[in-house]
Amino acid sequence: MISVEEARARILRAFEPVGKETIGVADAWGRVLATEIHARLTQPPADVSAMDGYAVRAADAQEGAKLRVVGAAPAGRPLDTVLKWGEAVRLFTGSVIPAGADAVLLQEDARVEGEIIVAGQACIPGQHIRRQGQDFAAGDTILSPGIRLGARQIGLAAAANHPWLTAYRRPRIAILSTGDEIHLPGEPISPGGIVSSNALVLAGFARALGAEPWVLPIAADDAEAIGTAAKAALGADLLVTTGGASVGDHDLLQAGLARQGFALDFWKIAMRPGKPMIFGQLGGMPVLGLPGNPVSAFVCGVLFLMPAIARLSGLSQEMPQTVAATLGAPVRANDHRMEFLRATLSCGADGALVATPLLRQDSALQGTLARADALVLRPPHAAACGAGDAIHVIRLDLLGF
Amino acid sequence: MISVEEARARILRAFEPVGKETIGVADAWGRVLATEIHARLTQPPADVSAMDGYAVRAADAQEGAKLRVVGAAPAGRPLDTVLKWGEAVRLFTGSVIPAGADAVLLQEDARVEGEIIVAGQACIPGQHIRRQGQDFAAGDTILSPGIRLGARQIGLAAAANHPWLTAYRRPRIAILSTGDEIHLPGEPISPGGIVSSNALVLAGFARALGAEPWVLPIAADDAEAIGTAAKAALGADLLVTTGGASVGDHDLLQAGLARQGFALDFWKIAMRPGKPMIFGQLGGMPVLGLPGNPVSAFVCGVLFLMPAIARLSGLSQEMPQTVAATLGAPVRANDHRMEFLRATLSCGADGALVATPLLRQDSALQGTLARADALVLRPPHAAACGAGDAIHVIRLDLLGF
Repeated sequence: MISVEEARARILRAFEPVGKETIGVADAWGRVLATEIHARLTQPPADVSAMDGYAVRAADAQEGAKLRVVGAAPAGRPLDTVLKWGEAVRLFTGSVIPAGADAVLLQEDARVEGEIIVAGQACIPGQHIRRQGQDFAAGDTILSPGIRLGARQIGLAAAANHPWLTAYRRPRIAILSTGDEIHLPGEPISPGGIVSSNALVLAGFARALGAEPWVLPIAADDAEAIGTAAKAALGADLLVTTGGASVGDHDLLQAGLARQGFALDFWKIAMRPGKPMIFGQLGGMPVLGLPGNPVSAFVCGVLFLMPAIARLSGLSQEMPQTVAATLGAPVRANDHRMEFLRATLSCGADGALVATPLLRQDSALQGTLARADALVLRPPHAAACGAGDAIHVIRLDLLGF
Repeated sequence: MISVEEARARILRAFEPVGKETIGVADAWGRVLATEIHARLTQPPADVSAMDGYAVRAADAQEGAKLRVVGAAPAGRPLDTVLKWGEAVRLFTGSVIPAGADAVLLQEDARVEGEIIVAGQACIPGQHIRRQGQDFAAGDTILSPGIRLGARQIGLAAAANHPWLTAYRRPRIAILSTGDEIHLPGEPISPGGIVSSNALVLAGFARALGAEPWVLPIAADDAEAIGTAAKAALGADLLVTTGGASVGDHDLLQAGLARQGFALDFWKIAMRPGKPMIFGQLGGMPVLGLPGNPVSAFVCGVLFLMPAIARLSGLSQEMPQTVAATLGAPVRANDHRMEFLRATLSCGADGALVATPLLRQDSALQGTLARADALVLRPPHAAACGAGDAIHVIRLDLLGF
């Protein structure tokens, strides 16, 4: 058995970012940026007004001063004139400040008398002017590769005049469930059979992480069938399997993969739930063999599949992120296997995150898993902890898992 | 001017969830569930083994006892037999416990001698058995309407044998940018013009919230053009506009909408950034008129567009969620307008969230906005606060915005 940390490190070494593709900026939401983005223009493009009002010379615009309005410059229609002594130009938010002007008199501070305005208040040079380039200047690096593009980053790239972006393509994640006892929802169920859910959960992982799931037909508990199915997945960036990874007589996954030349890296991790996990390579394609138990498969997915997909995706952020929290209820001392307790989260009086492990931690409880907000990390040989003790958690509620 | 809270309440009153649709459970990721889900079967379907090992009668299986293995029951292939005194049945994780057996002897505790196993340890009745229905029983309510379906909830619905789900359809959000000075990225830019980014940001909001953006062509600064464009959006669940909502001469949005029979609800909110915001109805379609300034539009989007889309989507959770944090740097006293400071987040030594307002809060800075993790809420007339003081924030880093 190897530790969770060693398993993750060995898995991550097997992955590098997938190739890049050109995408339209309008299709960039959720995609991972693959290049630096430099501003193609300067923003604001010139000194512009921050408010609706009048461009003035501050020296003129003392309280009670009368200024003649010689024109108007709506945003996007700059006036090609030089403001002279005693003159003002009507401006709006975003209007270019005309040459000669050095301040904006707010419209609420100006009394209009025909073509004349009367300044209700003195102006300070520079007031209500946004300086050319105060947001960014042409050539500035405004976004770095490896980030997932949200609405704001897309807005920034667009404002910097990029109609196209270079993103990592979506990694393709092949998903293979194995087992004679599992059946797709709504299909006839054999005696003692259960309904397959792992593949759908793992497809959800892929979607949540911006990858493309490819759900293969369920393979029977037969080494030949498993090997054939795995071979059919060649070309995917990663093959994830569930089931058949235990230590019993029915450990057919390794036998099936071996027929196709599988190179095993490791297959046992000191963790609970989720000990039996296979990792290796099949014809250049990494293969992650998760347990068949839904909760074990899920926890292994969070710990190993998520970072693998993140690495494939080109994301620079390491996953999963852990955050500090305090325990809401006591937990017993831990043995040599790292444990991941399903827990609910609440917010303490001081704003700190409180994680309360659910009472029933049996790894067969999908209902409990679906209600959990977090996994509480219990390192190997951790001492018993009481309510209020500091711990670390992986937040599930934020992941789309 | 009305308060942020009143504006949000008035906006929310204008929305109700959109209609429902049937979706395959494999396509349910990120969708909002529209009905209760009841389990269609019992899980586990019978008492099953939690481990690989042997079904035994606990009374027989004392340390050193020899038991005859009379058969094997792989998961999904239950044995139609009654276990008698002195017998054992080979089992695997998930195997149905045969009649007559009441415990599972772990395989590592059994020494195999041909057809005989020797118990290395005494068994306790019930050990390593998962009871029928311990996860859920047929008829149990396992998921409630109004939740966004993540991987785990989809897994639970599938395990409960639902091939189809009823979800709210994706709301359709029409987005109209106005202004003579704005141009799409990569297109020719007029003197004093800027590149349009608001529509892309708002489309990102829609995507992040599972809605369908419908980006309309940019409307010129002309009441007729704006009215025609707004009318063309009829049929959307919400029309969001940006620009033209200020108090200057170029407040053309209201004039344009008025030509199509727009019923104004309100148009000024005591907040910063983002004061001028229009809300009303056009032929039964709610219209939210956001400011043209990108940062103002974004903040108004977080405060008003997000809850509107959430309500349309059928989500039961109120948005935006605020969380407690502490200030990382002092802030000045606030005036009568609620303020939303762009801030970065870090994690304090005790795990508490620390929000540090960015130095430059000018509402024209898209670069700063793209780097912010949170909005710090500063209520009207809030006193000056120092580092370490308790505040509330809206986390942007978690929203896909």
